[in-house]
Parts: sequence; C-alpha cells; structure tokens
Amino acid sequence: MEAYSVFKDLAIIIIFAKIFGILARKCKAPQVVGEIIAGLLIGPSLLGLVQQTDFLMEMAEVGVVLLMFSAGLETDLKELMKTGPVAFLIACAGVFVPLVGGALLYMGFYGMAPWGSENFYKAVFIGVIMTATSVSITVESLKEMGKLKGKVGTTILSAAIIDDVIGIIVLTFVVGFKNPDSNPGKVVLSTALFFVLALVLGFILYRIFQNIDARYPHTRRIPIISLAMCFFFAYAAEKYFGIADITGAYVAGIVLCSIKDSTYIEEKMEVSSYMIFGPVFFASIGLKTSIDNIDGSILLFSVGFVLVALICKIIGCGLMAKICRFNMKDSLKIGVGMMTRGEVALIVAQKGLSVGLLTPVYFTSVILLIIVSSISTPIILKLLYSRDAAAEATQ
Amino acid sequence: MEAYSVFKDLAIIIIFAKIFGILARKCKAPQVVGEIIAGLLIGPSLLGLVQQTDFLMEMAEVGVVLLMFSAGLETDLKELMKTGPVAFLIACAGVFVPLVGGALLYMGFYGMAPWGSENFYKAVFIGVIMTATSVSITVESLKEMGKLKGKVGTTILSAAIIDDVIGIIVLTFVVGFKNPDSNPGKVVLSTALFFVLALVLGFILYRIFQNIDARYPHTRRIPIISLAMCFFFAYAAEKYFGIADITGAYVAGIVLCSIKDSTYIEEKMEVSSYMIFGPVFFASIGLKTSIDNIDGSILLFSVGFVLVALICKIIGCGLMAKICRFNMKDSLKIGVGMMTRGEVALIVAQKGLSVGLLTPVYFTSVILLIIVSSISTPIILKLLYSRDAAAEATQ
Repeated sequence: MEAYSVFKDLAIIIIFAKIFGILARKCKAPQVVGEIIAGLLIGPSLLGLVQQTDFLMEMAEVGVVLLMFSAGLETDLKELMKTGPVAFLIACAGVFVPLVGGALLYMGFYGMAPWGSENFYKAVFIGVIMTATSVSITVESLKEMGKLKGKVGTTILSAAIIDDVIGIIVLTFVVGFKNPDSNPGKVVLSTALFFVLALVLGFILYRIFQNIDARYPHTRRIPIISLAMCFFFAYAAEKYFGIADITGAYVAGIVLCSIKDSTYIEEKMEVSSYMIFGPVFFASIGLKTSIDNIDGSILLFSVGFVLVALICKIIGCGLMAKICRFNMKDSLKIGVGMMTRGEVALIVAQKGLSVGLLTPVYFTSVILLIIVSSISTPIILKLLYSRDAAAEATQ
Repeated sequence: MEAYSVFKDLAIIIIFAKIFGILARKCKAPQVVGEIIAGLLIGPSLLGLVQQTDFLMEMAEVGVVLLMFSAGLETDLKELMKTGPVAFLIACAGVFVPLVGGALLYMGFYGMAPWGSENFYKAVFIGVIMTATSVSITVESLKEMGKLKGKVGTTILSAAIIDDVIGIIVLTFVVGFKNPDSNPGKVVLSTALFFVLALVLGFILYRIFQNIDARYPHTRRIPIISLAMCFFFAYAAEKYFGIADITGAYVAGIVLCSIKDSTYIEEKMEVSSYMIFGPVFFASIGLKTSIDNIDGSILLFSVGFVLVALICKIIGCGLMAKICRFNMKDSLKIGVGMMTRGEVALIVAQKGLSVGLLTPVYFTSVILLIIVSSISTPIILKLLYSRDAAAEATQ
C-alpha cells in the first residue's frame, strides 16, 4: 500500500463523520451516533469506500485512549468525595444489576454456562458492556434543563463517574480472568498492585506537574508532557499489569484532574481528539460493525439487550436511591438519568473484541443501545421534571 | 505486535522530542533541530528505544502533510503579489544556482552522469534539496531584530515563499521525470493540469468556504472540513497527477489562506501538529538517519554539501538582488537571509528517499545543513545589520 492512500481514508472518514455528526445533532441525538453511522455507511458492509487497515486500527486505539484520558481529566475529585458515599452505593447497584441481567440474558439465549467456562465469560462480558453510564450525555441533558446543580443532578453525576471507575475495574477483572494462563489470585493481585502503584506514582507525578505548572503555566510543554504520561500509563498498565490500556489512560487523567492547568490540557487534547482521532475511533466502530451476518436471532437478542440494559439500570439505581432515602419521584429520575450509554460501552465492547470475548456482530446491539438510550433519556427526564413542576403548581 | 505497544513508542518520542526541543531553544537553535537529535538518540543507531514501524511512518507522513498545509495557510497572498516581480527573480536565482551547484557537487564526488541517467537524477536531486529556503527561521531572525517590515525584510519573506513554490515545482518535475514509465511531455502536462485544476477547484472551494465561514464562524466544522480538504488534495495530487502529496497539501493551504478564519484553522492544525504529529515527523527523520554507514567520504561530502548550499544561495540571491538595483549591503543581507534551510529540505529529502533518489545516509548532510544554516544565519544577519548601524552612526 502506498503511504499516500491513508489520506483518502482519512479525508472520507473525517468528512462523513462530521456531516453525519451534524445531522445527528439536528435530530437531537448525540454526535457520536452520527459518527458511528458514518462509519457503517462508508465501511465494507455498505458503500465500501474505506476498508479497515492496521493504520486506522492503531489510530482508533490512540483515539480511544485520548477519550479516556479526557474523561479522567474532567473528573471533579472534590465533588466526587462529597457526594461520595450515597453515589457510591447507587453506582454499585447500577453496575451489579445490569451485570447480572446481561449475563442472564446471554445465557437465556445461548444456554447456561458453567462457572469459569469460555461461555461464562462471554455471558459476563455482555453484562460488563451494560455497566457503564455515559457521563457526557447525562450531563448534557441535565444542563439543558438547568437541573445539573441540584441534589438529584449532583448525585447522578457523581454516581455516573464512580460507575465508570467500577465498570472499568470489572472490565479489568473479566479480561484478566479470561486469560487462560492467569489464575484468579494473580489477577486480583496485579490489579491491586496497579492501583496502589498508580496511587503512589500518581501522587509523585501530580506534585511534579504542580511544580511545572506553577513555573510555566499555559505553555505547550504542559499538555505535551501530560500526553506522554497518558501514553506511558496506557502502555505500562497493559504491558506490566495486564490491565486495559484505557484504564491506564483514565487513571492518568484522574492524576492530573486537580492541577491548575487541567482545563488547559483538556482543551488541547480535545482539539486532537475532535479533529482526527475521535472521528477515526467512532467511524472505525461502524467500519467494524458487520451487518452482513445479522439474522433474526441477533436482532431479537439486540432488542432484549437494549431492554435489559435500560430496565436494569433504572431498577438498580432507582432502588438503591430509594433505600438511601430519596423520595419516589427523585429515585426514578436518578434511575432514568443513569440509563444513558455512550462511548464507554463502545470502548468496553472494543476491548472485548480484541481479547476474543465478543464477536463483531454484537456491536449492532451496543450501537442500538446507545442510540435508543441517548434519545430516550432526555425525553423521559424532561417528562419527569415537567410532571413534577405541574404537580407543584397545582398544590 | 500488540496494539498497545504504539503507546510506548509515542510516549518516548513525545517526551524526548520535547526535552531536546527545549534544550535546542536554550542553545538558540531552532526547536526542530532538537527534535531530530532526539529521534537520532532514541533510534536504532544509538539507544534503540524506538524502532521505525509502519504506523510511525504513516503518522510521520500525516505530520508532514499537516506541516505543509499550515505553511500554505500562513501565506499572505496580497503581500506576495505586491513584492512579487523582484522577489520572483531573486527566488528563481536562489533556486537555480544551488540546483546546479548541488548537482555539480554530486558529480564531482561520484563522477559525471549523462543527461537522463539514474545517476543524473540523483545528482539533480541533491541540488533540489538545496533549493528551499526555510521561511520560519528567516522570519524569526528578522522579527527578533525588528527588520521584518523593511524593504529588505519584505523582499526576503516574499522570495522565501516563492522559493518554496518553485522548489516544490522542481521537486515535482524531478520525481516525475525519474519514473521510467513517464515521458517528459506527460510530466509537464500532468503538472500543468494539476495546477490549472487546483486553481479552478481551489477557487470554487474558496467560495464555498467563504460561505460556510460567514454562516458558522469559529465553529469546529471549519477546521475539520479544511483538514478533510487538505487530505483530499494530498491524495488526489499523488494518485491522479503523480505530484507529491505535500504539494497538494500546500496548495490546499494556499486556497484557504485568504478566508476569514484561516488563522483559526491554523491554530487548530497547530495543536494537532505540535502535540503529536510534528514530533513524530521530526523524530522519525532522526530514526531514519543511519549513522552506522557514515565514513570519511560521506563526511567530506556533507561538508561540501553544506558549503555549496550556503554559498550558492548567497551568490544566487545576492547577485539577483544587486541586478534588481539593491545596494551592495542590502544584496548581501538578502543573500544571507535566504540561506536558512529547515523543514522543507527534510521533506524534500524524505520524498527522495521514498522514490529511491536518495539513500538514508545523505540525511546526515541535510541535517548538518539545517543545523549550520539555522545557527549561522541569525548571527551573520545580526553582524551585517549592526555594521550598518555603526557606519550610519559615524557618518
């Protein structure tokens, strides 16, 4: 392949992703939905304009690491600590219920699988995909209604963040356990070791960055060295601890989220992300989604997948909110607010694909879940809040 | 190779490139010199931390296309038209003399080559590398002395820009002629066709962009669509006209250099460039530079190469400036101001490598030229200007 042919692929991906991203936003859907559809359209299944190449695959990998790094950078540690305990419980329930629900759904379709078997991990993995709430879609919906700062809003936000962390820890375990060479004890140990070392090294690096930042605020070296650190964490996590590279990148983001220039770093990351790596990542999901092999059974599974994913989140989070003394209405809002899925579900699915726990055909289910949840959540939330307002007005 | 191993390479490249870039600037040398040295240091010749991979090679190709697109975007078309005629003559002489000088140097070392032979093109290519003045280093030197806006400054700047265009046209011809399947007539024709089509299509696209820009100023879609256009031009130039992809990207930049948001586009391009693609490009030059095969003969050739490249620029540009009625002192300043070489020389050398007109060992000569010229030009220019100031003071 000639070196210049990458430019054809990149030009097509960027232009289609942007156009469909804009169209998606016009339909009140998140931009990523448009970008994924663009990938599906230009990919081998439909127009065949772009084929998946090693280069695109590696660009997509860089893209997802940048996204997770940004997600880490956006974390508000203080807020997280404050609303922590309640949000933590809600997040745990919101991870546990869909995890079990997803695994049972898979076993319902393809037969029960004994504990520890290949199929057992495949079933659990379907549950893992369902765990992560998408912070960005939730935040955007609440922001639009001016409800982000309230008690319900803060709780949803904190729970969504913790939910991400728990989801990624669960992912780490499942991927670790799946490896036939590793024993459970070793996985637990290396995961624990990673988080302990990340904490220690993270604190040292945090201090160093604070220092550099104080001396050279708003200079190019800050985001550049941060990026190198993100790549280093991503590499070291996977190479030395068997932990997903995206976890490493996310942790690197959290390490830097409290330095003064974290917003500055994030701005610079965002430019690289939205200009080129982001579109390549989301479009490559579409490129990879094989719709040739879709049959009735997969379609049925997808419908079940979406329903289970949505209902389990509402039940898990809502019930726990009720237990934590929220009233009925607010508990329901929290449940609904937590049901949006987004990038992270795709990232997890992507990881499953690369370690052999998922086949490309299930991307359809994940994409359907993202589309349905991100369109329905804002609508339902709006209904719930306006019903409340109406009830208050008549009192 | 595991997907995550790209992160090790990227982390090492980014951190070393930045550190050596900062060190270079501390030594008053251009940052790129530091980045190249970083590549040399971490590459197979020395530390062996990073090996050249397909992914890095393609990232570097994207990097150089982004750099040339930025160079195009920075062009000031009006200024170019105004000082045009004189600057054009100076640029022509500044291209012609080093071109001949470089070719003769090569033939002096390796024997005369008959017109049209493989070795003839190799000799001419050495000349081609010598043609392009680096605008950025010249501009920075003049800016520091507050001499950028004067008659000499404007002429140097315009001549340097035109010089780039001529240099790239010459490169296009030489690369085109070298291809055994092509006949000279066809190369001339397809080159002409490319520039005519680029002019027509460019004008249409310019109008479209003006329109989008007026409707959605400062929105993300502007730089994103521009980037897609840059990639499209790069691809189409090489695929359909046999013209270097970098020429296509440069032309795309010139097409957009007059729209209102051109600075906005450039800002966004610059972030992606300096964060990741730029360091990868410059470091990959270092990675590729083979110092294992350097012997006395190559070293001697390199010294000759640097001397010929510098002296030919001074003679070519200085003489033409004198003919165009500049006084002796100003002519000398113009000659010296034009002698800096930078990215473009590397880009041209890179192109030569990929089409087989250059072997990696000659990168050493090119890098030496960049280092020597970019350190000596500011010093000599300063001397010339201060000598003038002293002469005026004693009058």
